[in-house]
Amino acid sequence: MSPTRFDVLSIGNAIVDVLARVDDRFLERHQLAKGMMRLIDEETAEELFADMGPATVISGGSAGNTAAGIASFGGRSAYFGKIKQDQMGELFGHDLRAQGVHFESVRAIVGPATARSFILVTPDGERTMNTYLGACVNLTVDDIDSAVVESAKVTYMEGYLWDRPEAKEAFKRAAAVSRKAGRQTSITLSDSFCVERHRDSFLDLIRSGIDIVFANESEIKSLYQTQNFDGAMQAIRKDCPIAVLTRSEAGCVVVRGEEVHAIPAYPVSKVVDVTGAGDLFAAGFLHGLTHGLKLAHCAQLGALAAAEVISHIGARPEVNLRAHAKAVGLL
Amino acid sequence: MSPTRFDVLSIGNAIVDVLARVDDRFLERHQLAKGMMRLIDEETAEELFADMGPATVISGGSAGNTAAGIASFGGRSAYFGKIKQDQMGELFGHDLRAQGVHFESVRAIVGPATARSFILVTPDGERTMNTYLGACVNLTVDDIDSAVVESAKVTYMEGYLWDRPEAKEAFKRAAAVSRKAGRQTSITLSDSFCVERHRDSFLDLIRSGIDIVFANESEIKSLYQTQNFDGAMQAIRKDCPIAVLTRSEAGCVVVRGEEVHAIPAYPVSKVVDVTGAGDLFAAGFLHGLTHGLKLAHCAQLGALAAAEVISHIGARPEVNLRAHAKAVGLL
Repeated sequence: MSPTRFDVLSIGNAIVDVLARVDDRFLERHQLAKGMMRLIDEETAEELFADMGPATVISGGSAGNTAAGIASFGGRSAYFGKIKQDQMGELFGHDLRAQGVHFESVRAIVGPATARSFILVTPDGERTMNTYLGACVNLTVDDIDSAVVESAKVTYMEGYLWDRPEAKEAFKRAAAVSRKAGRQTSITLSDSFCVERHRDSFLDLIRSGIDIVFANESEIKSLYQTQNFDGAMQAIRKDCPIAVLTRSEAGCVVVRGEEVHAIPAYPVSKVVDVTGAGDLFAAGFLHGLTHGLKLAHCAQLGALAAAEVISHIGARPEVNLRAHAKAVGLL
Repeated sequence: MSPTRFDVLSIGNAIVDVLARVDDRFLERHQLAKGMMRLIDEETAEELFADMGPATVISGGSAGNTAAGIASFGGRSAYFGKIKQDQMGELFGHDLRAQGVHFESVRAIVGPATARSFILVTPDGERTMNTYLGACVNLTVDDIDSAVVESAKVTYMEGYLWDRPEAKEAFKRAAAVSRKAGRQTSITLSDSFCVERHRDSFLDLIRSGIDIVFANESEIKSLYQTQNFDGAMQAIRKDCPIAVLTRSEAGCVVVRGEEVHAIPAYPVSKVVDVTGAGDLFAAGFLHGLTHGLKLAHCAQLGALAAAEVISHIGARPEVNLRAHAKAVGLL
């Protein structure tokens, strides 16, 4: 097999996060379910923005956060995602490159603006996301640079891509190219509502040969339509080689065939904003996996990265994760 | 005298802050003097941005921060400043209005983009600012809405406006309209380099009838070309009715004729980012003054607001300053 150029290629919706602190009454007023991600149109985006308090803008996007995390661990990281050639797109591109991520996706010149997610952070640190996909609707198979896919040990994709038919096709193309090149494929289920929207299609995809599946407790329960976590775990272990099931402060469970590893969460003195927890968990785990570490060790790196990102506002690491992991003896 | 519609009208360069954490070596590599503000052209802005790490974008601008602070205290706040009709300008306008600030300045349709200041925050919490003025160069006398100036108790302006001849004219017009309406005028000297660039002209302006001058220690020393703080204080008390001299952790001194009040700094558990300290001090002070509070009390409100803003990243308050001041017994 030819040598690899990247450890992990991440593919997802390229989104700039627009964060504001709100109280619970704001969520009630706008009839928003706390902790969820919903898609909104441009009009709703404008209405919500007009009613929100002062904002902080930071690059985000689930797989974008993972790509930044991989690079922060010192991994060779690439990213595919669609931005427009506008100020928010410029910020998004800068932030990935500044982190050391290879990001050369062609920018849209016309059409909708770079995607924004209005992330409403309540005093308990929970985040409620309202995403206007904007330019992301233009991600198509044309954006899948096969040479990059073939040269990445793992191609990791977010379930959110399933919300747009063109992006779903791009996702499938990338998975096919990766498999044909003898590389590994990985997905995250992204969100329990996303799983509800695409349950059968996700199951088909996983059973068709995804190597590593990431899901949190509500997502994996939704996938198998069960209230029982153990039941869902037993089901996913039959459907894919490696499943990484995160359970917030209860830590995570990693299953590979008969192997089961339960890893505790890494302690956090104060949870400020949980945005990006799952994305950074995936970054730590995949960094370990692509460097030949044992599953339990991979999960510890994931837990460390997740703990860092929830201790501050924003879904990208604020410290060098490689140095951080070395300091605590994990690398 | 007719009733007022606003307590404080703030006028300044409308700027979006682009913050990144850097180490001291980054400042050395770019030959930047720590703690200073310098003006940069578009090319330098692009070079610096390309070399900076991942960024956080938050609305800023010295007088913009003050306007936000006044509104957060519950004061009636208005702002004049020039943005372009672009994404960063939209963010800037939203953030002021979301805070409750009256902001109706006409946006530029063509010409340079909304201004950005690249704020490099070193581990000690100091900030080094690199400002690309962009659309601010289009602030002219046409942007001075006399009706708003006449209806504001105090018109407060930043010294930075002096860097552009057109903005300086706008500043002078506003001061003249305010005086003619029997209102008060106030300025901040902004930055010791700014004072060096415009020393004589600042002195002429102050002596021509500015009611309240804000300056930090290095700015007031630079204005009177002395190394002696007391000497500078004696000089300014002859030149203007009220001078508010801030000295970072050493607190501040307020002088009005024979009166001298020394007020300690408000305690801060950890200084994260000093950006906006002076701007928020001015907000607290002016809020007190426009509500008939005694000078020492005004200074205490200033110290409280400054302490809040340096305890986090960004130059706008993250708490409701009115509630905060009430909670600690200052309102």
